[in-house]
Amino acid sequence: MKKIVLIRHGQSQYNLENRFTGWYDCPLSEQGVLEAKKAARLLKENDFMFDAAYTSLLKRAIDTLNIILAQLDQEWIPVSKTWRLNEKHYGALQGLNKRQTAEKYGEEQVRLWRRGFDVRPAPLDMDDDRSPIRDRRYENIPKQYLPLTESLKDAIARCLPYWQEEIFPALKRNSQIIVAAHGNSLRGIVKYLKNISDEDIASFNLPTAVPYVFEFDENLNYVQDYFLGDDAEIKERMRQVAKQGGK
Amino acid sequence: MKKIVLIRHGQSQYNLENRFTGWYDCPLSEQGVLEAKKAARLLKENDFMFDAAYTSLLKRAIDTLNIILAQLDQEWIPVSKTWRLNEKHYGALQGLNKRQTAEKYGEEQVRLWRRGFDVRPAPLDMDDDRSPIRDRRYENIPKQYLPLTESLKDAIARCLPYWQEEIFPALKRNSQIIVAAHGNSLRGIVKYLKNISDEDIASFNLPTAVPYVFEFDENLNYVQDYFLGDDAEIKERMRQVAKQGGK
Repeated sequence: MKKIVLIRHGQSQYNLENRFTGWYDCPLSEQGVLEAKKAARLLKENDFMFDAAYTSLLKRAIDTLNIILAQLDQEWIPVSKTWRLNEKHYGALQGLNKRQTAEKYGEEQVRLWRRGFDVRPAPLDMDDDRSPIRDRRYENIPKQYLPLTESLKDAIARCLPYWQEEIFPALKRNSQIIVAAHGNSLRGIVKYLKNISDEDIASFNLPTAVPYVFEFDENLNYVQDYFLGDDAEIKERMRQVAKQGGK
Repeated sequence: MKKIVLIRHGQSQYNLENRFTGWYDCPLSEQGVLEAKKAARLLKENDFMFDAAYTSLLKRAIDTLNIILAQLDQEWIPVSKTWRLNEKHYGALQGLNKRQTAEKYGEEQVRLWRRGFDVRPAPLDMDDDRSPIRDRRYENIPKQYLPLTESLKDAIARCLPYWQEEIFPALKRNSQIIVAAHGNSLRGIVKYLKNISDEDIASFNLPTAVPYVFEFDENLNYVQDYFLGDDAEIKERMRQVAKQGGK
């Protein structure tokens, strides 16, 4: 069986502080580092040997991947990094506290910003210091591709071409691939692979740093998917993600 | 000015134990980690902003690079890993203690194995567990390319095509490149860039984890080269490297 493992980064400093992160380049928290190490142990116990890895341009995903590859003694595999696997851009909300935002705008509005399929938060100004146009890491990307805010629909639309053109075709020459990315970019991939509706994908909460395995046969047909690890713990992590943004 | 920084990995566990390492995939020692962090500080103080990085398939070089990129907040740059930047293959000597080997075979023989330009240590057996042919990381490389031992001349010959075809041409589209590798693969690059004779290159001892900067003009002509950091400390590190292998 060929396998692709999707993994959402461990807890970040902004997750811990309950702030909107998006493209803000926030490091892992101490707990996030431990979560990544635990994911590595699960992958090791299940004898994963990766041939290639993909991640975003954000350090919480890159570090999660680096920790996993170091623990697996597989740091030598090729790693491709792309802005297309970045988290959904949260526009002007980036950096704001989710609870305070809920108190100010109401829980329903925050829920819509977080989970409305085609709802975009207010955009950043083009000349805001937080704008991707001012960030050296995006300078080789056509300016019209770079978002100042994104809905989940937007984020999925820029993520999927990379999945379709780079990651999935690489499975033809590889047996095992790992993708370390973010809640919303991975949502896009899961939506596509499992044909989940626009309505249902928003309430699908990927737990942090739990390896999510997709298996494919030799003809690259989807066979099955499953999480590695303890069921109760995975459910609890999904619940934790879901409840962020409440008052 | 365009810049390429060459950096030899920090002290490894085998350096510390005074053993021949070659392609053995030994981790950094604690001191090696500190050396890499110090190199990162020097690069930061000198405002280096890298566009691309190159390293070997061995974790002491990969980890040195990862530590530097994390400290510089430049983990998002593309990193290419290649067996062509690996250390010289030390054949059957890999794993042996340098001092014990000197006591057994004599200091002169060990000096020749370490520094003789075209002297190869006894080869590994093809079916030795240490053979690269049995290592998954080399499985996509034509078997006839994979060494069971190497002279410095051999190591330079397989390193230079990568420098000439990949690293140096990348300077056309990039301003600053970092290459984290090994004593002998980097010797090959320095020999080529500075036109050093076969005799003289063997006594050129690159200090561990000291950034070695090569500057080129817009037409990619060589301008100058220099080490970053304190002169006395660099000389001491070169002396330490040179004296390994004595009784």
